[in-house]
Amino acid sequence: MNDLKSFLQNNSSKKVIAVQGLGFVGSVMSLVCANAINGNYAVIGVDVPTKRGKKITDDLNNGIFPLVAEDPKIDQLFKKSIAKENFFATTETDVYKVADVVIIDVNLDIDKENHASGELINYNVDLALFKKAISSIGQNCKEDALIIIETTIPPGTCVEVVKPIIHNCLKERNLPLDKIKIGHSYERVMPGPNYIDSIQNFYRVYSGIDEKSANAVELFLHTIIRTDEYPLTRLGNTNATEMAKVLENSYRAMNIAFMVEWSRFAEEACVDLYEVVDAIRLRPTHANLMYPGIGVGGYCLTKDALLASWARQNLIGENEPLNQSEIAININDQMPRFAFEFLQKHCPNLKDAKILLLGVSYRGDVGDTRYSPVEMLFNYLVETGSTVSCHDPYVKYWDEQSLNIDQDLSTHLNQSLDIIILSTGHSIYKQDKTVDKIYNLEPLLIFDTIGHLSNKQINRLKKKHTVKVLGRGDI
Amino acid sequence: MNDLKSFLQNNSSKKVIAVQGLGFVGSVMSLVCANAINGNYAVIGVDVPTKRGKKITDDLNNGIFPLVAEDPKIDQLFKKSIAKENFFATTETDVYKVADVVIIDVNLDIDKENHASGELINYNVDLALFKKAISSIGQNCKEDALIIIETTIPPGTCVEVVKPIIHNCLKERNLPLDKIKIGHSYERVMPGPNYIDSIQNFYRVYSGIDEKSANAVELFLHTIIRTDEYPLTRLGNTNATEMAKVLENSYRAMNIAFMVEWSRFAEEACVDLYEVVDAIRLRPTHANLMYPGIGVGGYCLTKDALLASWARQNLIGENEPLNQSEIAININDQMPRFAFEFLQKHCPNLKDAKILLLGVSYRGDVGDTRYSPVEMLFNYLVETGSTVSCHDPYVKYWDEQSLNIDQDLSTHLNQSLDIIILSTGHSIYKQDKTVDKIYNLEPLLIFDTIGHLSNKQINRLKKKHTVKVLGRGDI
Repeated sequence: MNDLKSFLQNNSSKKVIAVQGLGFVGSVMSLVCANAINGNYAVIGVDVPTKRGKKITDDLNNGIFPLVAEDPKIDQLFKKSIAKENFFATTETDVYKVADVVIIDVNLDIDKENHASGELINYNVDLALFKKAISSIGQNCKEDALIIIETTIPPGTCVEVVKPIIHNCLKERNLPLDKIKIGHSYERVMPGPNYIDSIQNFYRVYSGIDEKSANAVELFLHTIIRTDEYPLTRLGNTNATEMAKVLENSYRAMNIAFMVEWSRFAEEACVDLYEVVDAIRLRPTHANLMYPGIGVGGYCLTKDALLASWARQNLIGENEPLNQSEIAININDQMPRFAFEFLQKHCPNLKDAKILLLGVSYRGDVGDTRYSPVEMLFNYLVETGSTVSCHDPYVKYWDEQSLNIDQDLSTHLNQSLDIIILSTGHSIYKQDKTVDKIYNLEPLLIFDTIGHLSNKQINRLKKKHTVKVLGRGDI
Repeated sequence: MNDLKSFLQNNSSKKVIAVQGLGFVGSVMSLVCANAINGNYAVIGVDVPTKRGKKITDDLNNGIFPLVAEDPKIDQLFKKSIAKENFFATTETDVYKVADVVIIDVNLDIDKENHASGELINYNVDLALFKKAISSIGQNCKEDALIIIETTIPPGTCVEVVKPIIHNCLKERNLPLDKIKIGHSYERVMPGPNYIDSIQNFYRVYSGIDEKSANAVELFLHTIIRTDEYPLTRLGNTNATEMAKVLENSYRAMNIAFMVEWSRFAEEACVDLYEVVDAIRLRPTHANLMYPGIGVGGYCLTKDALLASWARQNLIGENEPLNQSEIAININDQMPRFAFEFLQKHCPNLKDAKILLLGVSYRGDVGDTRYSPVEMLFNYLVETGSTVSCHDPYVKYWDEQSLNIDQDLSTHLNQSLDIIILSTGHSIYKQDKTVDKIYNLEPLLIFDTIGHLSNKQINRLKKKHTVKVLGRGDI
């Protein structure tokens, strides 16, 4: 079905939802809306008219979902929406003319400038593209549309940026300002096996620029989320929900950074930080202490603290940065370098080493490679002259490195190898059959950067190989 | 009973435990040992031969416990030990000659240099007193004594400081080195209503400088802790247990600092951080997010991160500081100043204001005033010319300010007042009868620095008074 007109005719009885941005959040959000648990919507996914955007929308209209889906529910819901014929994708912004609800899921990126060591030198938030996206809605939307921002934005953005743009557009179109509704309700989407549930079956926080807006957001969210089990929380203003999102991700990033910094100390002191963390976690107040690792990746935790700190300096007055949260990003960004240096100590001749990286995505059992810390480790190894091959069961093509990845683990293991690096916590790598295969190789160095192997597996492997685990005081 | 000789004769069948240091930990640890659940010990508490030390030991021998005890078990155990006649206190170090077990509970302080704003300028760890305390044991102890350090010490101290001192002393005394046992097992003592339980009924981590030492510590701990319910955890070396203690307290201090910094941002953005935290806490990974407050106090959280950072720079090689953890201390130290400036905004004429501080200790329902953040707030107010009176049901004499505190709340409330500041979370202050009394006063400014009042109480008080809560976006 490639025709918007016939799509709308077929769905003429339904409210229309436009979802702006068909990336990791918007594409899946579209599915959730098209299969609303308490509503019956016609959903139009909108992406930018670039080559990539056109491919995504064409694919969607031709029955091809743009993401490799580890969550079987994605395929199920996509098939249902095809059968119901209530999901259409386009790059034309005039579809906002017919939308009752517009959901904004475009990216708001940050420009980070890092030293070669990973150290954060500078960063900047450029709102230009985001403003353009909001304008395209303001120039087309119904005067009484409900506009919901799901994008993670700097606190203050709804009031200081979105509202003025939409109001100016409406004024230029000689439309009243008192009917439009603007709300903010951030997603907590978690790519992986619970992708759909992370929208449908999870807690939601929301707000509006006024009470009418907040009420409208609330009504809408009840139609797509199981709010009986996961009650909604309304906060006092949009600053509050915007802050909640970046606060929760800053907190997470900080907790990771804490362990990153202490894992370096632990190595210096020959302390096994894993057993220390296990001992401390017995205290309920400390149960969420993280384990050490190679650092943090993904789209959110690598930047949200900086969005917040930027907002504090540029959008809400002109105040100090959020030092504690900024330093967290800085520490995490340097962890891949530390892992590389750790390896150098144990293998001074890295230049001639043949290395296999097990996992390139940033998270176990997920194929998302955005800002993966493995990428920096990979780059350091390649720059030093090592021969590096990569395996990842969830990544066929490593976008950021323009690299095809052979999915057959045996092929990788059958080549001549000096070092195997466990770099992503995919389940397959800790299966005993995988460990058996590694055990049977000629003696080599196994470097577990994420504490993925069990003590039993480590002890077995050590009978033949050299095994080093980051954070175990193995230096 | 004032005579050590007769004490030892009366207890000749028992193993002797000496507890070095009779402060907040050692005095209570002595009681727990004298009333060991699986042992029968003669306990000698040892303090320094200063005027204060002599008073403490004399008091103990005369049936006066040195701490105001909110935990009824303290009184019970003290009376039992008096009846059993198995607890003696002294300032003589030669008692270590008869001790089978020596437990070290002396303080290891840090010298912090703070700017008037609270900003941390510098800090230093001076081990001289600690070394002296260890020497006094080494010069007297049995060659096969078990020495357990409970003091929070910089990671590396047991191996780099304690062991060499003890070994040197033994060498000088022409005694063998292979019989002495040195272990580390940090306390998690929490002054307050569960004082005794925080030793007897809580998880313990321990280690030894060798296996023999670790085994001996384990055997001993089984006799004083309910290890059936709270199993012991042995860590690989003393660096690990030393690190575990400062790590868990650094983590806590960091989590507090995180909310301190964000609470300032929240004020600027008119965001009620309490409702934000409540919304985020629904996520199990974020359930231990703290609420905003006036900062952090007490003996541990204000310094332990610095002990760790100092050790990383001075005891374990010569490495970088633990930046993330140091900055936490720095942020927390500045919070009382922020609370003061917040108040200034709402009351420009603080100079002439009559102010009542409700609570001076650092923690609710506890009388411990060490490093209380209320002290800094008190100082700022006094310096600015305000007339400040203080109430605290748990503090009769405010040591750090050499101030007698009238325990009768009504007397305080009956004076003419402009501002009431809720500064410590004692239960009595949120009882409705207290709120009623405050309600009935002439209109004044109520400043809740710790989010102690309920929304209902705030709304009621607001009908007559001005109420401001730190972290609620009330600026």
